[in-house]
Amino acid sequence: MTLERSNIAAMQGYAPGEQPQDLTTIKLNTNENPYPPSPEVAAALSVFDVASLRRYPNPIADEFRRVAADLHGLSLDNVIPTNGGDELLRLMLTTFVAEGEVVATTKPTYSLYPVLAAIQGAKLSEIDLDEQWRLPSDLIQQLHEIKAKAFILVNPHAPTGSLVSSATIAEIAENFDGVLVVDEAYIDFVDPDLEHNCVPLLQRFDNLLILRTMSKGYSLAGLRFGYGLAAKKLAAPMLFKTRDSYNTDAISQRLAAAALASQSYAKSTWNKVRESREKMFAELTSMGLTCLASQSNFLLCTIPESIGAPRAYAALKEKGVLVRYFDQDRLRDKLRISIGTEEENSRLIQALTDLCRSES
Amino acid sequence: MTLERSNIAAMQGYAPGEQPQDLTTIKLNTNENPYPPSPEVAAALSVFDVASLRRYPNPIADEFRRVAADLHGLSLDNVIPTNGGDELLRLMLTTFVAEGEVVATTKPTYSLYPVLAAIQGAKLSEIDLDEQWRLPSDLIQQLHEIKAKAFILVNPHAPTGSLVSSATIAEIAENFDGVLVVDEAYIDFVDPDLEHNCVPLLQRFDNLLILRTMSKGYSLAGLRFGYGLAAKKLAAPMLFKTRDSYNTDAISQRLAAAALASQSYAKSTWNKVRESREKMFAELTSMGLTCLASQSNFLLCTIPESIGAPRAYAALKEKGVLVRYFDQDRLRDKLRISIGTEEENSRLIQALTDLCRSES
Repeated sequence: MTLERSNIAAMQGYAPGEQPQDLTTIKLNTNENPYPPSPEVAAALSVFDVASLRRYPNPIADEFRRVAADLHGLSLDNVIPTNGGDELLRLMLTTFVAEGEVVATTKPTYSLYPVLAAIQGAKLSEIDLDEQWRLPSDLIQQLHEIKAKAFILVNPHAPTGSLVSSATIAEIAENFDGVLVVDEAYIDFVDPDLEHNCVPLLQRFDNLLILRTMSKGYSLAGLRFGYGLAAKKLAAPMLFKTRDSYNTDAISQRLAAAALASQSYAKSTWNKVRESREKMFAELTSMGLTCLASQSNFLLCTIPESIGAPRAYAALKEKGVLVRYFDQDRLRDKLRISIGTEEENSRLIQALTDLCRSES
Repeated sequence: MTLERSNIAAMQGYAPGEQPQDLTTIKLNTNENPYPPSPEVAAALSVFDVASLRRYPNPIADEFRRVAADLHGLSLDNVIPTNGGDELLRLMLTTFVAEGEVVATTKPTYSLYPVLAAIQGAKLSEIDLDEQWRLPSDLIQQLHEIKAKAFILVNPHAPTGSLVSSATIAEIAENFDGVLVVDEAYIDFVDPDLEHNCVPLLQRFDNLLILRTMSKGYSLAGLRFGYGLAAKKLAAPMLFKTRDSYNTDAISQRLAAAALASQSYAKSTWNKVRESREKMFAELTSMGLTCLASQSNFLLCTIPESIGAPRAYAALKEKGVLVRYFDQDRLRDKLRISIGTEEENSRLIQALTDLCRSES
């Protein structure tokens, strides 16, 4: 006999990517920023008054929300501070999707979404991407037919790195009567020449929730800080009802605010990652491997059948290079490779070159 | 039209106690420890490597769990690390109480419980304490009759400070077939002469969940770190399924472990708080005010009708002393006063004395 709810008893938990603690592993498996947080973050940490920790933090991270609101041209009421982006996804489900209601995602997508839906007891509906990994042309019709209460779209997409335009996002928001969640975890790595920006859409659509995280673009995966951007009416119940009463701590509020204010430093890391991404794309392609063009900080690379992705994954790990393999439809012949420092990327390329050569 | 679930639309959020940012206010309203965190916490913070924040933290706070398991004579599988004690309460509801099922608490109790039940869409059943603020003698029968799936008991009790014995806890655990949550947020302030300890009960009862927090006893309210203790089978779904995948951050894991390891420092603060509590109890009593004997770091004090608790609350606030007033049945003639430093307590006593004198 178990005391668990039946949906919890039946589900599997999320399996995070490996986090080896040794410092020699080249870690290209969980899309972390290869560069450290900004010097302002280090400075904020060094002057943090530890005695102040005996008091509760600001319940709602006012300092951080002020920085975020200014950056995005929004007001405090539009910013939901969360303990990592994961918490925003959970809050969205808790707030808007009742047990038995439908939450839609694409297939494939970030593997956490199905887990969160299972915890909430929501029905998950996975909408297949087309052969070019694009949204299907009848997406809105499908969302209506399955009566989706929410649709979660990671954009740029994981694990392909492809980008849906803001015009398409607007079209979905306009024609969908549920909550449209755009998970922009990787948005900072989009080519700035594209001038991609969905934040202005918040003025038009009060069913749009944009997720941002400090984990990738701001090199703070270890800090657990993310935020949501939404119209005041959509944000309010997450801000004032369903959020744990003190969901972010005093240190992370301070450091996240310092990081978000360090725009020029952050942009310098994004530029380096983009340059490395294009270089790695060219190198992998010149080795005869097929890669998808990516607007994110990773590349999805097809491994020749003669080698096989699981074997390539294991061979790379053997050489101290961790990448990500997904045992899922359409992904079993591929590896997702995070963009690291130039030195890390060279080690990856060398290891892959050796592997391909030993097979030919 | 709202997109919120109906239970969310209907509910009110939790109202945290006031957190004024000015440093002159005597803050005796949210039961914080008046003493700073241990020197080892400051040392751990000062050597923390900010560059390491670019990587994800240990998903499950292994270092902290090791310290907690050693302290309590348990194993890693018995320790659930959480982003504040609040998160453990939420995880318990998410994991064990389905929408429409009953969660029981006492009345009065910690005011967060009804809010969390409302978020989960659970039915809340409040069981009245008797006239001496004790559990009713037919508690177990009541839990059966209302078909409670979980019973949350804060022990020492808030806001009275009274303590239920471990023998009574054992009797409830043995005769209740739901999850018994004992919220021990204030356990560190119990008189050690009582030799009160519920942790050994975990060997006997696999429906018992003990909540601990670093907020009060370890002076880390600003850090947001708590933990659950439970039999492996009860802990597992919260550890591996319903917990957000990285629910605690790298800095707070490190600092919480350092604080928990600093037992002798922590105990020195508990002793001081207990001494101050007995002194304040004597002073309030000698002023002719009725106080309940407390095993916690606060006193619940009845304010004479001629003054009135709301007026006393306002008059104290006017003098820069914040205490807590609850506009609830049985509490409307009372104030809850946290134990502060000797100087803070003197300021409170002086302010109350002046108030009583001006009324006589």
